[in-house]
This record gives sequence, C-alpha cells and structure tokens, in this order.
Amino acid sequence: MYKTLKTENIFKGKILDIKVDTVLLPNGNTTTREVVIHNDAAAMVAVDDEGKILFVTQYRHAIGADLLEIPAGILEEGEDPHECALRELEEETSYKAGKIRHLTSFHTSAGCSNEVLHIYLCTELTKGSYNYDEDEFLTDSRLTLDEAMSKILSGEITDSKTIIGILMYNELKNRGEL
Amino acid sequence: MYKTLKTENIFKGKILDIKVDTVLLPNGNTTTREVVIHNDAAAMVAVDDEGKILFVTQYRHAIGADLLEIPAGILEEGEDPHECALRELEEETSYKAGKIRHLTSFHTSAGCSNEVLHIYLCTELTKGSYNYDEDEFLTDSRLTLDEAMSKILSGEITDSKTIIGILMYNELKNRGEL
Repeated sequence: MYKTLKTENIFKGKILDIKVDTVLLPNGNTTTREVVIHNDAAAMVAVDDEGKILFVTQYRHAIGADLLEIPAGILEEGEDPHECALRELEEETSYKAGKIRHLTSFHTSAGCSNEVLHIYLCTELTKGSYNYDEDEFLTDSRLTLDEAMSKILSGEITDSKTIIGILMYNELKNRGEL
Repeated sequence: MYKTLKTENIFKGKILDIKVDTVLLPNGNTTTREVVIHNDAAAMVAVDDEGKILFVTQYRHAIGADLLEIPAGILEEGEDPHECALRELEEETSYKAGKIRHLTSFHTSAGCSNEVLHIYLCTELTKGSYNYDEDEFLTDSRLTLDEAMSKILSGEITDSKTIIGILMYNELKNRGEL
C-alpha cells in the first residue's frame, strides 16, 4: 500500500540522522517524508523508600529553558533498554535500583521520528555514584506523587516522558496494581 | 550560563528544519547541539454525546506501522493552536466542536526538538465535512474512555499525544473537574 521508492540521506549527527524518503501512496501518487532517525531511549520513575520520586532539572538547548524531568538517557549501541535505565539512573541521580519494572514504551513524535522511549519504574534504591556525561549539567530534586501530579496538571511539567511516566505510575497505583 | 556561539543550518524541509549549534557550556567547554525545528501542533480529545472518543488510524512512515491516535495536525503559519485544533478535527473526522478547552501542552522530545504539542478537549460535536490533506489516508474509529485506557495500559496505543491526552482526560474526570 505504501512503498519507499528512494532514500536520500541528508545528515548524520551525534544523536540523530535525517533522511528524506520518496514514498508511493495508496492512491498511486508519490510524496516525500522527512524522517528523524534517533536511537531509542530509557527513562525512569524512580521512587525512594519515602515514596518520593527522583527528578532532574536541566537546560534543554532545543527549547531554550530549564526543564524538570525524570532521569533518562539514550541507549548505547546494543544496550538493552532496562540496562540503560539502571545505568542512567545511577549516572544522573547516584542511585542504584534493586527492583525495576517496565511501565510503558511510546513514540515521542510519530509524524516524523522513529524514536521510542521506554519508561521503567525503579524502586529499592541504594546509594551509588554520579557519572555525568561531560556536556551534562543536572540538578537533583525529589517530589511526592501529589506534588508531581500538581505540576503536570498546572502545566509546569511539559516533558513528554515525565508526563507519561508519572500519569502511568499514578494510574497503576489508583488501580491497586502497584 | 549557556551561550550559542555558532549556528549551522543543515536542512530546510516541508515539516522540519535541522540546525547544529555550537554551544558554550557552564564549565567553559564547547559542544554541539543538533536541533530539530518543527512547527507546533494541536491534537484533540474529541468526545461525542455518548462519551465515545474519536480516533484515527494512519500509517506512520517514520515508524513503519499503522498507529491508533487522536486526531492532530501541524499549525499553519500564524494560526492559533485552538483554531488549528478545530480545523484539523473537522478535516480528519468530519466533526465540528461546539465547545473547546485546553487540556495541556507538552514538548514531544525535549533533548533534540523544539516541537510543542497542544491538546484540547472538544465536545458538543456536530457533523461537518472531511477535508484530508492530499497525502493523508485515515480510518476513523471511536472508543469509550475505558477501552482507550485499556489500550494505553496494555501498550497497544504508543503515540505520545494520544497517551497524554487520554490520561489527562481520565485524571481530570476522576478528580471531578470535567
């Protein structure tokens, strides 16, 4: 029904590549589709023994503002998403998780990107050590679920993975599944 | 603290542009940041008089699969997000909304893209007329909120705007705010 007739590789970057495909449509016409090729990523709803959720604040250059987010990172070559989640959690928050559970996986921007973001619930936290990337500057904080939900409903939290992770965690708790 | 030293414009496309900025970091080092420049978009949780939510299914070339999504579209030049929501709702589902309310706005992929997606709750639906884009092929369907929530919790729905729109609508209903 859809068929890719031609692929033009436009850009090869550090975190994303760009291609433009010429595509045959179901009605016999052709069009072009611009595609962002992005490695998958993992994010963590990490909950401490007091029920507080670990957050990081970081400057996001693409947006030009500091965003309050759950910890996350891009998968390394051949890395399993749940290994990435455990690695990035310790690198960004200094905590290791004794228990990890998949919450959901989603497409960030289906119209133009192949990026998949996997979200995990991490608990039984014990102290490890920070290991930031050399171009990464983060500030830690912790919020109760109620505080995080308030910041989502008020629009203060605007990051997709953070909204989805917290709303899923809240819903599963409400349903008695956590 | 962060300062853009240089901007290299890489690609100018139909729906996205790419630039690579050289950025001065807080520690005095420089790095590059790849940025996807994408127009903002609007999506709609449109609920009919029986409480059913309007969905569309469409082939997403970047992902290589059909996705079940709430209706959505990219803002035209100078268009207000809520006007875009009303326009795209009628174009994609054939329904006009008598009532519209902002639910939330979020960043789809904060690490590399400036895209903001605005989600509206649309109600008091009346029949108008379809007006698909020439490269757009959609199938309509309707789901109850319970059915949509099940498909989110099972992982069948993977689209970020759809997950966020439905989870927000569900949460505001649970809180008696709708």
